Amino acid sequence: MKTSRMEAFSDGIFSIAATLLILDVTADASGGALGGTLRHSWPQYAAYAFGFIVIGIWWVNHHVFSDVLAKTDRVQLFLNTLFLACIAFLPFPIRLVAKHVWDEGARAAVVTYGITTTLASIFALISWMYVSKDRRLISEKVDQETIDHITRLIIPGAPINAGATLVALWSPHFAIVLLLALTFFYVLGTYLSKRDWSEVN
Amino acid sequence: MKTSRMEAFSDGIFSIAATLLILDVTADASGGALGGTLRHSWPQYAAYAFGFIVIGIWWVNHHVFSDVLAKTDRVQLFLNTLFLACIAFLPFPIRLVAKHVWDEGARAAVVTYGITTTLASIFALISWMYVSKDRRLISEKVDQETIDHITRLIIPGAPINAGATLVALWSPHFAIVLLLALTFFYVLGTYLSKRDWSEVN
Amino acid sequence: MKTSRMEAFSDGIFSIAATLLILDVTADASGGALGGTLRHSWPQYAAYAFGFIVIGIWWVNHHVFSDVLAKTDRVQLFLNTLFLACIAFLPFPIRLVAKHVWDEGARAAVVTYGITTTLASIFALISWMYVSKDRRLISEKVDQETIDHITRLIIPGAPINAGATLVALWSPHFAIVLLLALTFFYVLGTYLSKRDWSEVN
Amino acid sequence: MKTSRMEAFSDGIFSIAATLLILDVTADASGGALGGTLRHSWPQYAAYAFGFIVIGIWWVNHHVFSDVLAKTDRVQLFLNTLFLACIAFLPFPIRLVAKHVWDEGARAAVVTYGITTTLASIFALISWMYVSKDRRLISEKVDQETIDHITRLIIPGAPINAGATLVALWSPHFAIVLLLALTFFYVLGTYLSKRDWSEVN
Repeated sequence: MKTSRMEAFSDGIFSIAATLLILDVTADASGGALGGTLRHSWPQYAAYAFGFIVIGIWWVNHHVFSDVLAKTDRVQLFLNTLFLACIAFLPFPIRLVAKHVWDEGARAAVVTYGITTTLASIFALISWMYVSKDRRLISEKVDQETIDHITRLIIPGAPINAGATLVALWSPHFAIVLLLALTFFYVLGTYLSKRDWSEVN
Repeated sequence: MKTSRMEAFSDGIFSIAATLLILDVTADASGGALGGTLRHSWPQYAAYAFGFIVIGIWWVNHHVFSDVLAKTDRVQLFLNTLFLACIAFLPFPIRLVAKHVWDEGARAAVVTYGITTTLASIFALISWMYVSKDRRLISEKVDQETIDHITRLIIPGAPINAGATLVALWSPHFAIVLLLALTFFYVLGTYLSKRDWSEVN
Repeated sequence: MKTSRMEAFSDGIFSIAATLLILDVTADASGGALGGTLRHSWPQYAAYAFGFIVIGIWWVNHHVFSDVLAKTDRVQLFLNTLFLACIAFLPFPIRLVAKHVWDEGARAAVVTYGITTTLASIFALISWMYVSKDRRLISEKVDQETIDHITRLIIPGAPINAGATLVALWSPHFAIVLLLALTFFYVLGTYLSKRDWSEVN
Repeated sequence: MKTSRMEAFSDGIFSIAATLLILDVTADASGGALGGTLRHSWPQYAAYAFGFIVIGIWWVNHHVFSDVLAKTDRVQLFLNTLFLACIAFLPFPIRLVAKHVWDEGARAAVVTYGITTTLASIFALISWMYVSKDRRLISEKVDQETIDHITRLIIPGAPINAGATLVALWSPHFAIVLLLALTFFYVLGTYLSKRDWSEVN
């Protein structure tokens, strides 16, 4: 099977999950109080921006992943569906974190977020192991070095996310700082990376 | 008419229907009670995961179905719309089942789910009978064996779903177990299937 | 400009507008009362099915329309946006009709629906006049007979919808029957039509 | 990397953001009062139409922008994600403006809208500077005149939107009139423009 419809379905899930984040940005206030409510709602905007960027990063990585595929099969489509179910779940824990960041629910909210991203990382890893085993679904045009490079990028995902989840059990606020730092590090690393990613494709 | 836009419209419906499932996952609780509320909300997560996987399976099957088409016409587009209306309806009964699984509304909820999937199966069957009659819209590249194989896969859908609906009238919880078992069986069967599905295309 | 992204944007709007209809299907009831509530909610399901089919028909017609285009320009994209704004508005009046069909709000609800479809028809007509004037954006492969055929199909849309709106001012229920009859007639006409639409493309 | 999936992801965001605007059009009224409620809700419809057209204009411009790209890279994808995060945020301030246009919250609402469009303009500008620097990602087929033309179109965006935001601090209603005038001017300018935009591509 060709990969084009798998990409279309995935792009749909990614773009809808990101856009649905805006439904959780609210400001119920009478006219006179609106300015103050908006100023105090900054955790909502921060959660929206963070969530959009995180889903955007997952999308870029999914892009890199599917660009090396020559074809797909039912097993890959099913693993991809499990991965996408985690991505489309993200608006829920992000909403929880934005709402409970300053109260006693912060721990439960950040742990829920961490479990979701850990599961996404695990399904991404299983999916990659399945398609790259004996180059099962990999395009012939892709060299082994690129395969190994993607493998090295995907493997740390699950332990890092699981670690951040454990940190959240101890201190949810430190876990939030850690997750923000990882995201910035990721984006910065992409910018500074000597490896020219456009070569991958 | 080419099938590309029918596929784009269908992929849009499938991906939105799956992603909208997250809007039904909620946790309204004060900070201190959030952890407990989340732990007791597992039917919501189970319903989300089940719904996402079920819509994913329908999508994979629609993928296989439309890959054998050489073209489409107005009648097929209309039958496809009726089928998609059932798929996009799924978030409603899935929400009902998640909410009422432990109370007296379980029977009504599962029956509503069953009627929806039965109608989807019937429209899928009518659609397939229309396109495969005298190979009306089938690509010349597809051999008769593949056509017969898809026919054998599509025919049991309506009786199985109608049967599960009848079981739900008698025992909604047994019907839920049955539907979960059928889904697992389907996924397992796909994995173990000797038939190489990539040959279909 | 190529038409592919205009089609992708339009397909996105059509599929989201259709899928959002499910958000208006609700059943708030305690467990014991769920069955009765669901049975009495049939106007919601009827509105969902009708709305999905109506949006599906508009989508098929948009499909036929854009298939004869060789290219697009900024004016066409803007007219298309105005048309799509009417399509994406449809979930609102459909929700109103489903909610108020049996009370005094029926007239206002059906008139709102009628104004929306009348505006959609007018923008579709302006858009078609713009692209077909001196075959401005029409593909060379399309013969004049097909152009004239589409023109004959598009012109009656605005007066029919405006007429149904006027009927709704007099009797909203008769207008609903009329709109349902027109939809059935349209679908039946498509099926019986001697003209082979696949020839258009 | 090819630009096709960046376009698909972007088209998804644009079309969902535009369609979600309808969720903010509501009319909660008893049957007898529905007509009056609908007549008095015209700021909601105006906000919907304005929001849909504004998102449509941004989409057309994104279309023009991405049509001159030969390829994309991770930095461009990230900048594009930041830009899209602003676009997908628009339904929130548009909802605020529709709700508070006649009360004391108008200033806060219009300023929130202005900050959003200003940020969108800034990210669009940074994105364009990145891709056009030494023609980094520009297609060879595009001549320098077209590049310069797009540069001249993109540069005024940020100052105009920032200016409108400052005006809103002084008079929110004048800022609304200004934003409406700019939108009409933009559309009119497109129609009257001697430059044939279809040449760009």
